[in-house]
Parts: sequence; structure tokens; C-alpha cells
Amino acid sequence: MEIIRIPRIMQDTSRGHILHSRTVGFVPTMGALHAGHIGLVRMAREENDITVVSIYVNPAQFGPAEDFSSYPRDLEGDTDSLRKAGVDVLFLPDDLHMYSRGFCTHVEVSGLSEKLCGGFRPGHFRGVATVVTKLFNIVSPTKAYFGQKDFQQALIIKRLVKDLDMAVEVVVCPTKREEDGLALSSRNRYLGKEERNAASVIFRSLKKASEAVKSGIINTASIKEIMLAALKSESCVSEIQYGSAYDPETLDEVERIDREALLAVALKVGNTRLIDNILVGPGK
Amino acid sequence: MEIIRIPRIMQDTSRGHILHSRTVGFVPTMGALHAGHIGLVRMAREENDITVVSIYVNPAQFGPAEDFSSYPRDLEGDTDSLRKAGVDVLFLPDDLHMYSRGFCTHVEVSGLSEKLCGGFRPGHFRGVATVVTKLFNIVSPTKAYFGQKDFQQALIIKRLVKDLDMAVEVVVCPTKREEDGLALSSRNRYLGKEERNAASVIFRSLKKASEAVKSGIINTASIKEIMLAALKSESCVSEIQYGSAYDPETLDEVERIDREALLAVALKVGNTRLIDNILVGPGK
Repeated sequence: MEIIRIPRIMQDTSRGHILHSRTVGFVPTMGALHAGHIGLVRMAREENDITVVSIYVNPAQFGPAEDFSSYPRDLEGDTDSLRKAGVDVLFLPDDLHMYSRGFCTHVEVSGLSEKLCGGFRPGHFRGVATVVTKLFNIVSPTKAYFGQKDFQQALIIKRLVKDLDMAVEVVVCPTKREEDGLALSSRNRYLGKEERNAASVIFRSLKKASEAVKSGIINTASIKEIMLAALKSESCVSEIQYGSAYDPETLDEVERIDREALLAVALKVGNTRLIDNILVGPGK
Repeated sequence: MEIIRIPRIMQDTSRGHILHSRTVGFVPTMGALHAGHIGLVRMAREENDITVVSIYVNPAQFGPAEDFSSYPRDLEGDTDSLRKAGVDVLFLPDDLHMYSRGFCTHVEVSGLSEKLCGGFRPGHFRGVATVVTKLFNIVSPTKAYFGQKDFQQALIIKRLVKDLDMAVEVVVCPTKREEDGLALSSRNRYLGKEERNAASVIFRSLKKASEAVKSGIINTASIKEIMLAALKSESCVSEIQYGSAYDPETLDEVERIDREALLAVALKVGNTRLIDNILVGPGK
């Protein structure tokens, strides 16, 4: 596995592959890798000649009161996992190269970025959109892989790729879960034992709501009540930021679940912010 | 000369050239071409294997009270000139393909975009930055050519290319002028005969200021006075928006011209908004 730290060298390496008509699969990450990331890597390997993974904890997508400095970092463990997973190139840029002196350009996906998580993390998706645009320009991937757990992020990235005519195919892969349903997330490492047990309520609440939809309850108010009641039954849940049924294209809350909808939730377990979602509706 | 209207086809065409190791020179324009544009085409041809010119009057860079609908259009004349100039591909996208349903992504170069022309044309440079990002992603040029007359635009584009890691070299070519010094501009077509004669005062005012700098007057207040006095002597000049000496990297007004500076002016001759600039300072 080749390790590259300089964007220009990464760019030349990728362009070299493209000039040789090799397809490049790309998995951008913030490290602290788990089986969800490795699943994305597996998909990238299956579908492309070359697999590139980036690890970069992007300061621009953290708010001033958020967990940038404490965000889990495990470069040694990550490097091992990626080597074992058969990754060809690990791209490890640093802040000096990513945001050099005088940096002042931002990519903004208006509308989508202010909803759901955007309401609680102002500037977050601007930071995501900007760094993903940069990474795509550096790596020139044929396909890029994201997890459905970050549904809003994937939607925003698909939108910016389309709007800015980037020649990248965005692939969204199903959320990987622990046995009790908890969606894999680097932030799960923050959870104490009791919190970790409690966190399984998130998926349970989504499943309960989903089963209610299947049973014919399609007005969002009732579905929301079912979700929130489940979440509130767990005392470790210290704050529920949002939890309802949304249009999977616009992220607006829907009134009735009469076609495909996104059940999504964001909450805090202790001090740890967690999100999850599932798609429901006819045929799901 | 190949004419392409669909972004995806333009993208595939350009990628085909790149896969064959051909360099692509790109001149993005809004049409109503003049000798300045053709000079850029000449440079592009000299330095690249393939020359692509786009004509697209980008609605997103015009304010609601600006001249989008009346902006000069001469597709037949332009096509002729470009064919004669030896252009390989003319890219003619339409609004439906450039801003399709649901478009909501914008590229913003903060700081630089609010200064000089940005103060009088809010949103203009956001529109420019966004469309240039799109065009670069569609055309994948090796080098892209811009005129120095639009100094601020070229500076913003250089900045966004660097900040977003786009693999494009931005080349800024000297301003082409009429015999009396008037900078070539598509908007010169708006000028009546009297206004056209009067408009030569713009370059005259810049030359006077530049000569004053050469003679040793380096405080901006005096230089500004010389420029503005020249401009005000012309009764067709109906409004002076700005006119002074600026730092060519930050576009902030400088106090003294003790190193390279940009003398820049924006004004209206009758109802027509015109801009011009020259670089002055040691060695100029």
C-alpha cells in the first residue's frame, strides 16, 4: 500500500492511473475506521482497478463547540486495516496542504445543507462539501463510496457532483450495524458501557416506526410519536435533536408516508451525538 | 470546428483528448467576441494540442437590474471568427443543461469577491466562480485563458483553482486595446458615438496616474486625485464607482505605491458600465 501525503503527488498518481485507463474507486474517511468503512473499501475494490482511501479529520466541518480535537484518531490501526483490506493508496493530507495560506473558497449546497443535522451543526455541510470537492479534484475518482448512515451527507454530495458537473459516480452503501442494531460510527468509541447498551434504542425506535408504517399507519404525527416514545424510554438519551419522517430528496418533513420516506433521528446519548436512519414506504 | 451543446458530450470529448495525452486549452467567453477574445484563442492554440472555446451568457452572474437580457449576442459572427481562428471545439451549453431542476450548489471565494466590482455587483463573482468551476469540470482544460481587463475575475479564478485543487493552469493575458487606448469589451457595443469617444478617458486617466507614479508620486491620495480629475473632465462619465490603487493580491486599497500596485477603475459612460486597470510600480 502506497502512502501519499502531498495533494499534488496524489493528483499525479491518480491521473497516471486514469491515463492508463484504470478506474479509481475512492473512500474518503476521517479515520478511526470500523467495519462500515471496510465494507465501503470492499465495494470500491470490487468495482474498480485501483482503490484509494483518504484519512483526513477535516477541521472545516466541525463547529467551535464540537469534538474536532477529541475526535478519535488511530492512524496505526487504520493503516493496518487498510493494508489488510487490499487498499492500493492511502492518502493522508495535512491541514497545511488542504487549507494553505489565504484559503477562502467554499462550496455550498443551499437548501439541503440547512436541514436536519445542518440545523444543529451550522457550517458543517459547507465544510463537508468543500473538502469533498477538493478530495474529488485531487483523487479524480471514477466512483466514490459513502455510507447511508450519513444520508444527508451523501445526498448533498450527490447534488454537488451533479450541479458542478464532476465526473464522479457517488455510490451509497447500506449502513453496517452491530448485532443489536446500533449503526457503526467512529463516535461509538465515546460511549461508556451503559451508554453503549442504551444506544441500541436508536435502531429499535426506527424499527418500531418502520413496522408501524408497514402495518398501515402512514400519518407522520403518529409515527413520530412512536419513535420519540421509544427514545424517551431510555434515560441515557439526554437530548433528541430531530426524529421524524422526511422526503428523501428534499429532506422536508412529510405529512404522510404514502411513498418512500426517510425515518431519521439525531440525538445525544450522554454527551455523544449519534444519528441513524432507514428508508420506509411501499416496497421497503 | 466541432460544435457541442451537451455538457456530458463535451466532457467525454475532452476526456478522450486527455486519454490520448493531448493538452486542452480553454477560453470561456460570453460571446460577442472581439480581438481580445481572439488573442486568448491564439495563445491557447500556441500552447495546446486542442483548443476549446465556450460561449455561454451565464444568467447567474448578472444582478436583477443588470444587462443579462440585452447583453450582446452574435452567435453567427462568433462562430465564423472562431472557425477562422482555428478553434477545434465550440461548446455552446444552454441554461437547461447548466442549471437543471433542483440546482442549488454555489462556489464562493470570500473576501476577494466582495471588493471592487463585487461591491457594486453583489452575487456577480459567486455566479462567475460557480460557472467557471462547472466549465472547468466539463472541459477539463490543461490551461484556461482570461484577459487582464477582468483582473478581479482572473484573481478569483486563480484563487478557486488553487483552493479547490483543480488541475488547471490559469493564464492571464494582457488587455487588448483600441488605438485610443479603450480596453476591448463586448459592452463597448452599447456606446453611442459621443460616448465611444469619451470612453477613451478611462485609459488616459490610468496612463496619467501611471506616469505620476513613475515621476515619484507614490501616495495613493494624490494618484487617486489625478485619476478622478481626468475622469471627471469628461461629461459623458455619469458615475465613477471606484478608482484608486490596490494591492494586486488582496485588492485592498494601498496607502502608498511602494511596490507593484493595481490602478483600477469602474465607471459608467452614459448607461454603460466599463472597467479597466493597469499594473504600476517598480519595474513597470
